[in-house]
Amino acid sequence: MINKEKVFVLIMAGGAGTRFWPFSRNSYPKQFHDVLGTGQTLLQQTVERFRDICLPENVYILTSESYKEIVKEQLPFLIDDQILLEPMRKNTAPCIAYASYKIGQICQDAVMIVAPADHIILKEKEFEATVLKAIQKASEKENLVTIGIKPNRPDTGYGYIEFNPEGEDSVKEVVSFKEKPALELAQKYVDAGNYAWNAGIFIWSFTSIKNAFENYSQGIAAIFSDLPYFSESEQNAVNNSFTLSENISIDYAILEKAQNVVVINSDLGWSDLGTWKSLFEISEKAQDNNVVEGTHVLKNVKNSIIKTPKGKLAVIQGLDGYIVAEYKNAFMICPLEEEQSVKSFVDNAKKLGIEYV
Amino acid sequence: MINKEKVFVLIMAGGAGTRFWPFSRNSYPKQFHDVLGTGQTLLQQTVERFRDICLPENVYILTSESYKEIVKEQLPFLIDDQILLEPMRKNTAPCIAYASYKIGQICQDAVMIVAPADHIILKEKEFEATVLKAIQKASEKENLVTIGIKPNRPDTGYGYIEFNPEGEDSVKEVVSFKEKPALELAQKYVDAGNYAWNAGIFIWSFTSIKNAFENYSQGIAAIFSDLPYFSESEQNAVNNSFTLSENISIDYAILEKAQNVVVINSDLGWSDLGTWKSLFEISEKAQDNNVVEGTHVLKNVKNSIIKTPKGKLAVIQGLDGYIVAEYKNAFMICPLEEEQSVKSFVDNAKKLGIEYV
Repeated sequence: MINKEKVFVLIMAGGAGTRFWPFSRNSYPKQFHDVLGTGQTLLQQTVERFRDICLPENVYILTSESYKEIVKEQLPFLIDDQILLEPMRKNTAPCIAYASYKIGQICQDAVMIVAPADHIILKEKEFEATVLKAIQKASEKENLVTIGIKPNRPDTGYGYIEFNPEGEDSVKEVVSFKEKPALELAQKYVDAGNYAWNAGIFIWSFTSIKNAFENYSQGIAAIFSDLPYFSESEQNAVNNSFTLSENISIDYAILEKAQNVVVINSDLGWSDLGTWKSLFEISEKAQDNNVVEGTHVLKNVKNSIIKTPKGKLAVIQGLDGYIVAEYKNAFMICPLEEEQSVKSFVDNAKKLGIEYV
Repeated sequence: MINKEKVFVLIMAGGAGTRFWPFSRNSYPKQFHDVLGTGQTLLQQTVERFRDICLPENVYILTSESYKEIVKEQLPFLIDDQILLEPMRKNTAPCIAYASYKIGQICQDAVMIVAPADHIILKEKEFEATVLKAIQKASEKENLVTIGIKPNRPDTGYGYIEFNPEGEDSVKEVVSFKEKPALELAQKYVDAGNYAWNAGIFIWSFTSIKNAFENYSQGIAAIFSDLPYFSESEQNAVNNSFTLSENISIDYAILEKAQNVVVINSDLGWSDLGTWKSLFEISEKAQDNNVVEGTHVLKNVKNSIIKTPKGKLAVIQGLDGYIVAEYKNAFMICPLEEEQSVKSFVDNAKKLGIEYV
């Protein structure tokens, strides 16, 4: 039985990024959009997902100053102390250290769940069961728990977790973390059977993560462990620590070095929604295998994803496998198979000197 | 030498139509758009074209009540008496009768030029010379003069004028008017050499057209010849006459019956801009044979026409031979070769019950 008062959720909502352009922009990135058209933004969905796992006052959002107001607007139940502002991008390790030591100050025996704000999980009950199991695993031993997703294709856009297949349980010892592989290697991982996609969701106790920072990342431990959290000088102190901190991910700083990392293999209907294609795949299909949002008249259009604003009529003929997306002052038409061009598009847009990104 | 004070221009600017959707709509049809992105609407260009042919006070615009304010805005030099409002659509013969009898009341020896507001003419000097010649031909004899365009392809979207090839001059006797032909027939016309496209531009004296109405269309002559023009009761009287009038084109009512019709063959860089394809053909091409207006980032896009609003970035990849057009609350993506679908698109849009047309 889990004591909800000791469960804390840290939601990483500071990401920028324009892979999902024109919706995702630096000024309003993906996590703040209702990408699936469900009525909730990805951030709101992420928080909602923990409704029965932790108390609202134990939800902490990690973001940057420029997104603070968006976060408050989308999650009005938060008080300022629950919104942690990173003053600069230094990857995930400093962020997690900041949040962990802050929470540790009010709850030494906290169990924390770290989760990205911009992923999608379709199987919410399975997710809840997996997280509860992870909390249990993180509580009973000094485990650093990760969530692994059973790969159904050799996706080259995800990192992989290699695990030791021994044992009956879905919880396995982690052998190593693998960065995004080339296709051939990804296929080998899938065929091998003891690799999972790294969902970027971590569960650990305050004690475990504190010890891990002290063992593997002393610099970060030193600058974040003893700050005046929950006081007026918190932000200044945090800003100073971020300036001093190295720029490093939690994977590099801790997970690849620690010996007590386990993975819980699960099937969550998970996607990092990192690409238009992943959004297409995860979305419900209308006629002719299209994903549509907005008012449309389509003819000979199939296998396409079409997202246009309310009140606009889109009349489209003769496209197969395309993205058609309009948002504010930009729209894109691009084959789904060539969406990696989006990045160069956006770079070109930057050169035009206009606020399209 | 032409007496400008006796030259009158009647510009037919009442057309609705949605073939050019989403730009051309019933609420704001083609003639009121800057279709070519030149800074002038088609109506303004049409008026401008007669700058050295007639006086500004001799320009009359035929339109409907719903477009009156647009006309006044686009042509602020007009006084109300120069804007003739047709109360209902009854094709061209009643309109022309209305304007002709009104002008005849102030200038019995007027020469009139009737021209559509929504065509494009690239060779303005040639146009001016042709019209001046037509005015001369219409003045010296009781001719009904039409302008014929030498066909450069078997276009099935235009009407054709068959003429008697005898004589040295470019002015020929008209044998018959042919409606839009099927492709095979159009090809025969082009091969025969004595067929011209009917540009819908007519030049005649008040005397000639008055006699023609009296000879061939007595009903229309009777109801329009003696109205209280230039008085406060003009509009009521005109409305009444339109209600009584038959619905008939000037071609059917007069030109196909009259024996004194001539055509001046010319090469004006003319297009009726009736289709996206005709706009594409007439427009200056940018890189990769694209016609572009707006801010774009294109990749592997060719032979396409792309028109988007100012301040919007369009990022497009992988289209060949497409229309991409955005205007107000609608946008369209459609192969140029299938633009005849536009009509069904628009009909579908109507069914959606939203003001897209």
